[in-house]
Amino acid sequence: MSVLIKNVILDGKKRDIFIEGNKVKKIGKNLNLKAKQKIDGKGEKAALPGLINCHTHAAMSLFRGYADDLPLKEWLIKKIWPSEKKVSEDDVYWGTKLAILEMIKSGTTCFNDMYWYGEAVIEATKEMGLRAVVGPLIIDFDNRGSIENFKRLYRDFELDKSELIKIAVAPHSIYGVSKENLIWAKNFAGKNNLLLHIHLSETEEEVEGCLKLAKMKPVEYLEKIGFLGEPRSRTSSLRGGNCILAHSIWLDNKEIEILARRKCSVVYNPCSNIKLASGIFPYKKLKEAKVNICLGTDGPASNNSLDMFSEMKFASLLQKVKEMDSTVAPAKEIFEIATKNGAKALKIDAGEIKEGKLADLILIDLNQISLTPGHNLVSDIVYSASGNCVSDLICNGKILMRDRKIEGEEKIKKEATKRTKNLTKF
Amino acid sequence: MSVLIKNVILDGKKRDIFIEGNKVKKIGKNLNLKAKQKIDGKGEKAALPGLINCHTHAAMSLFRGYADDLPLKEWLIKKIWPSEKKVSEDDVYWGTKLAILEMIKSGTTCFNDMYWYGEAVIEATKEMGLRAVVGPLIIDFDNRGSIENFKRLYRDFELDKSELIKIAVAPHSIYGVSKENLIWAKNFAGKNNLLLHIHLSETEEEVEGCLKLAKMKPVEYLEKIGFLGEPRSRTSSLRGGNCILAHSIWLDNKEIEILARRKCSVVYNPCSNIKLASGIFPYKKLKEAKVNICLGTDGPASNNSLDMFSEMKFASLLQKVKEMDSTVAPAKEIFEIATKNGAKALKIDAGEIKEGKLADLILIDLNQISLTPGHNLVSDIVYSASGNCVSDLICNGKILMRDRKIEGEEKIKKEATKRTKNLTKF
Repeated sequence: MSVLIKNVILDGKKRDIFIEGNKVKKIGKNLNLKAKQKIDGKGEKAALPGLINCHTHAAMSLFRGYADDLPLKEWLIKKIWPSEKKVSEDDVYWGTKLAILEMIKSGTTCFNDMYWYGEAVIEATKEMGLRAVVGPLIIDFDNRGSIENFKRLYRDFELDKSELIKIAVAPHSIYGVSKENLIWAKNFAGKNNLLLHIHLSETEEEVEGCLKLAKMKPVEYLEKIGFLGEPRSRTSSLRGGNCILAHSIWLDNKEIEILARRKCSVVYNPCSNIKLASGIFPYKKLKEAKVNICLGTDGPASNNSLDMFSEMKFASLLQKVKEMDSTVAPAKEIFEIATKNGAKALKIDAGEIKEGKLADLILIDLNQISLTPGHNLVSDIVYSASGNCVSDLICNGKILMRDRKIEGEEKIKKEATKRTKNLTKF
Repeated sequence: MSVLIKNVILDGKKRDIFIEGNKVKKIGKNLNLKAKQKIDGKGEKAALPGLINCHTHAAMSLFRGYADDLPLKEWLIKKIWPSEKKVSEDDVYWGTKLAILEMIKSGTTCFNDMYWYGEAVIEATKEMGLRAVVGPLIIDFDNRGSIENFKRLYRDFELDKSELIKIAVAPHSIYGVSKENLIWAKNFAGKNNLLLHIHLSETEEEVEGCLKLAKMKPVEYLEKIGFLGEPRSRTSSLRGGNCILAHSIWLDNKEIEILARRKCSVVYNPCSNIKLASGIFPYKKLKEAKVNICLGTDGPASNNSLDMFSEMKFASLLQKVKEMDSTVAPAKEIFEIATKNGAKALKIDAGEIKEGKLADLILIDLNQISLTPGHNLVSDIVYSASGNCVSDLICNGKILMRDRKIEGEEKIKKEATKRTKNLTKF
């Protein structure tokens, strides 16, 4: 497989990009190379690295718009949990496909998922061709989230690996998973070279609960049980930390210092955090402490979108008002948390368009009004555009969307919609 | 002129809408009426009232992305003002057209503008066919913003009126316009049955400045000089207050009480307010005091988008986190501030799709992923969709966009882009 992309704007200059296999092989002017597929940007498209959504629950696309404007507890207890009890493997398969459709259409080339029925997530993702880190949910109070279930899934996955998919160990949270199981998760991840993915300090209540039970803050608790430490093996690809902590809102300075020392990645989920009134992510402090900050949408039931363009705008603007300083979280930085930093967290060789890197990239239609007059592409991308400006998407060297067309779109929307009715009827 | 819209979802039911002249004449099932133009929604489109953008500086689309992530003063003094000094009538004409293109594409049928060269704004708006309240900027320190200039423009407009356009008297702010000129503006508006449009309490600095100079808060100052009072004439169409106050962030309880008593409308500009780190609008208090709250994008130099869909999401989510209460500013309420309340502020008989109302409406493509699976249309519109879900737009009974196509789009983008280069070169 090879793809030649002609005449696209890359870092402000007109360039050709040659993709061979799953990698960017060559970038240059007027490349005269033979390729199986060709896209001509005609100078009217820009190439950008694909966006990396570092925390979501993709299949919850089935619940988009189902339960809004409710108190967090009512949202969970009266609406989301009863419906999720009914969710089947088949539902997750179609829900994930619907989510991937949305992600492709809005320029995301990789997502870090956490949900039930990992097998269905894997199958849907493989079929759609997107890159993902799949975290089959581990939680104490639902059989579907048992460690036995996870081990079985992991064994099966090892027999039929995919270069697009990694498995992460994803214990739900410190309040949803016992100390013993958290330690098991940590050890299993270390032994098998896997990422860890967990919700952390999303609400003030969670912190208070931890203080009450463990007499310490959530990060201190995780540190104490050894969850945050780097895996021991010096040859491990996990060097530099393997913990991905979603939300991470209610952190004090001491906790931030621990996260930095342990080389954790934290995921900023601006829309979900403010929609559920959880709080505002301490971006500036984490940035100053040099913690790796990445960006995520959270699930479509609490956002309600998977469009990382919209998420970038929220990410920046929210910090400006939090700090009452319009220079905080500038566009360039925010674009990096949505690309480079995500790649670093998920340990994939992407997030930039460079020779030798994975060919995970998007083309932007520069004729869109939101990108006109075009003083500054990164500003326009972060502050003005929506995912609809993405014309083409390439993941792992394969064209998944061309001129906004994706194969099978209508069927996925229909099947997913059909399944939601049953899930929300009581 | 007549338009028959068949098979669209209106308030949850499949309906036909018949438009005659500039009004909605009939709404019903299977209407069998002759019409010049016909649109068939095939049950796959929903009809919604057009969105009303209650505060913008349309022509500033020329500066989208030109100056971001700067301190407010530097943004104004080093970037925006020097460029605005160079802005010509021709620039404003093309900048306004570019903005209107964006507004039509994202479902806005009416906007409340404040900018230089009102003549050019009027001309561009007439040609594009959108409804607008045009406020030629009155400001003390620029000749283009003199009262003489305004009077001349108003005389000319009176000779060549348009049913799409109203003139507002738009003194920039209490710090940009002298007391005498504010009083003149108030009297002129009262005498001629016009709306008043002013920036108010956008920054804490503005409030402090007023306290220092006038020994009172901005709203108290405006009240004291008689600016906020209802025009005296009992027959005036301005009964119920004619003041539209943009931003209105830094208000105390006493000021809110005055605004309620004076039946002022306040414009919430969430994106601009947080992008410039001005502060967060006191939505809950204003709502409790029953002040008419409407929604605006502000200019594209401080947003940087004119998409009211994105603005609605920011409007709601920002209040939820401000109040740390996820039930505040629910989707339905936010949709109303973007439609009904805007119509009330601008005193136009629109903002709802009802027989007898102005035919200012949009059709939504329900096949969009952001509206799938479709549990709740209003939630999806506010929390998940972007302006790209708008397929068709009708303003004043005329189809301005059909299947996302607008006549002359390419030329407008080209001409506007050409003009920006000169404006930002020094």
